[in-house]
Amino acid sequence: MLPHRFATLQWIGGLDGHLRILDQTLLPRELRYIDCCDEQTLWQAINTLQVRGAPAIGIAAAYGVCLGLRNGDGMSEEEFFQRLQEVVKFLASSRPTAVNLFWALERMEKCAAVCRGQLSPQQIRERLLAEARQIHEEDRAICRAIGEHGATLLCDNMGVLTHCNAGALATSEWGTALAIIYFAVASGRHIHVFADETRPLLQGARLTTWELQMSAVPVTLICDNMAAEVMKEGQVQAVVVGADRIAANGDVANKIGTYNLAILARYHGIPFYVAAPSSTFDLGLPHGGLIPIEKRDPREITQPFGTPIAPEGVPAYNPAFDVTPAELVTAIVFEGGIITPVNANTVQAALAGLHQTRQPRLQDYPASK
Amino acid sequence: MLPHRFATLQWIGGLDGHLRILDQTLLPRELRYIDCCDEQTLWQAINTLQVRGAPAIGIAAAYGVCLGLRNGDGMSEEEFFQRLQEVVKFLASSRPTAVNLFWALERMEKCAAVCRGQLSPQQIRERLLAEARQIHEEDRAICRAIGEHGATLLCDNMGVLTHCNAGALATSEWGTALAIIYFAVASGRHIHVFADETRPLLQGARLTTWELQMSAVPVTLICDNMAAEVMKEGQVQAVVVGADRIAANGDVANKIGTYNLAILARYHGIPFYVAAPSSTFDLGLPHGGLIPIEKRDPREITQPFGTPIAPEGVPAYNPAFDVTPAELVTAIVFEGGIITPVNANTVQAALAGLHQTRQPRLQDYPASK
Repeated sequence: MLPHRFATLQWIGGLDGHLRILDQTLLPRELRYIDCCDEQTLWQAINTLQVRGAPAIGIAAAYGVCLGLRNGDGMSEEEFFQRLQEVVKFLASSRPTAVNLFWALERMEKCAAVCRGQLSPQQIRERLLAEARQIHEEDRAICRAIGEHGATLLCDNMGVLTHCNAGALATSEWGTALAIIYFAVASGRHIHVFADETRPLLQGARLTTWELQMSAVPVTLICDNMAAEVMKEGQVQAVVVGADRIAANGDVANKIGTYNLAILARYHGIPFYVAAPSSTFDLGLPHGGLIPIEKRDPREITQPFGTPIAPEGVPAYNPAFDVTPAELVTAIVFEGGIITPVNANTVQAALAGLHQTRQPRLQDYPASK
Repeated sequence: MLPHRFATLQWIGGLDGHLRILDQTLLPRELRYIDCCDEQTLWQAINTLQVRGAPAIGIAAAYGVCLGLRNGDGMSEEEFFQRLQEVVKFLASSRPTAVNLFWALERMEKCAAVCRGQLSPQQIRERLLAEARQIHEEDRAICRAIGEHGATLLCDNMGVLTHCNAGALATSEWGTALAIIYFAVASGRHIHVFADETRPLLQGARLTTWELQMSAVPVTLICDNMAAEVMKEGQVQAVVVGADRIAANGDVANKIGTYNLAILARYHGIPFYVAAPSSTFDLGLPHGGLIPIEKRDPREITQPFGTPIAPEGVPAYNPAFDVTPAELVTAIVFEGGIITPVNANTVQAALAGLHQTRQPRLQDYPASK
């Protein structure tokens, strides 16, 4: 079923292996992989969007901890944990908005903390690699679950608008928003996708159309400012997007332009769905106004891919994300099911079932799977 | 007051002169003029957007009639009027949406018709050139009037969002939407403009920022999908756009993305203003659903300025305009004042005062001014 002929992220080798990532800045022109053998290379890859998408960033960061500790075997326990802390802090500084990054790093830290005093640095490194692999593997299952739950929202012959790339390239496999489309298509429904090109970095034009084309899912590219027109023409029956962070009340931070779409969908009476794993929820934040929004280099707008399009010296404003209020979100699809309506109560109730309340124990972190 | 250091359109010479236009496809990289000596060159210039903006297209087309009749002196009256008809039909096929094109051509035809049987071909050509110059000159006065009326809508320290380019480059001078900003600034108000880049052809990034920068009006460039975010941040207190055609009920066809903006403005409680000369109204069309919308080459999206950004073979949908329903338009500013609320009655009443009801006579068309 719709096999992808690329791997967004792959750990190559064993304990002293490295992380191979598909360089998404070169797509669709070139399919090139980058081997990240240290945390600096990975930091750069996350920061420059060679690897992007909230779930993929989380997985990459987990492996990044392993990269940062490759020379840790000869260290004292104190040195080892000091180094771990440095690596985590460093990787956490690569991008501010997607909470999966911090979630994955925290999970790696917890894994190490449980082993502290009981295992050698090398043994802890083994547990950490196993944990990273576990995060990676879980993401596949989560994307599949999101796809299965969400596919029930799409009917035959629907036009579905999506923004940015919340597909296989943004996760381990399948994606979040696109998983819903892939699973609907796999179950025999005809879905026509409209992909917003997603300025400034054109993830929709470059990545979403590319992966949909590889899976033979019909897709039409539009400019971001055409969304209302295709809605008015009756070509779109649902909007499905991913998320970079979801606050406790259901407010959704996602790629800039998502909030635009949510307003347009509401005006046209079209459902607006958000797809994200539970690791994207940040229950510590009461509402979306508290989500830090990354402001990126204005040259991403004024000089797209190196070509100047605006007069020299013209200032540009480049927020990389926006926040869509929960009241505009028809439903959130996560691995546990579908949350609707979306508000603080329904979000809390939905996630409560998934969250372990007990403290992690050493036996929760097997050395190998 | 804010003199522009460029001329969008200039008639060079006398009866056998030619039209010099500023090639807007090369801006802001290069300031180059094109000399159009025949109607084919002008048709190409309109069709490829070397000259664009509804009022400017109307002026250009009027001069285009003069170009097409340059060899008309030796013709019989029948041949001359046959040729006139061919030229008008040909120029009318250059672009479908902006009604100013058809308005200007019709005005030129009427001017010739009144002279028929009374003047020689050369004399008629003189009247036609005078009429084209008159259309050009009237546009300056109209833009000035729009600027003066509209400036009353803007207060000190406002952020004003605009889309595409409805400035001096789209008209004889001053512009329509931008005239409002220029006149507000000239009267001492501090206005900060947010310019939507306006994909696919980036008229906002390339043209609006350029002409505002030349007039020292502060401007920040944003991507089209950032409009809702800057509205939510409280940076925008008004939206001002131009128009390519306005139906009898006040529905507004304008550059694709305008309808998006109108919905976003309504959601945020921000006034949405349209600025256009009376020649942009098409009272023969009861509503905007009847306005023909130009669909342009998908490669404008997939290969912006020759650089491919999407995988080969991905289809793109490229409507060049959209229609904003009157109910989303707070006010229309035209040379006669401000129309608000916007509906069939107020539009009809506002335009009634401007329209001449008597038949045109020969003495209405002086040979020189």
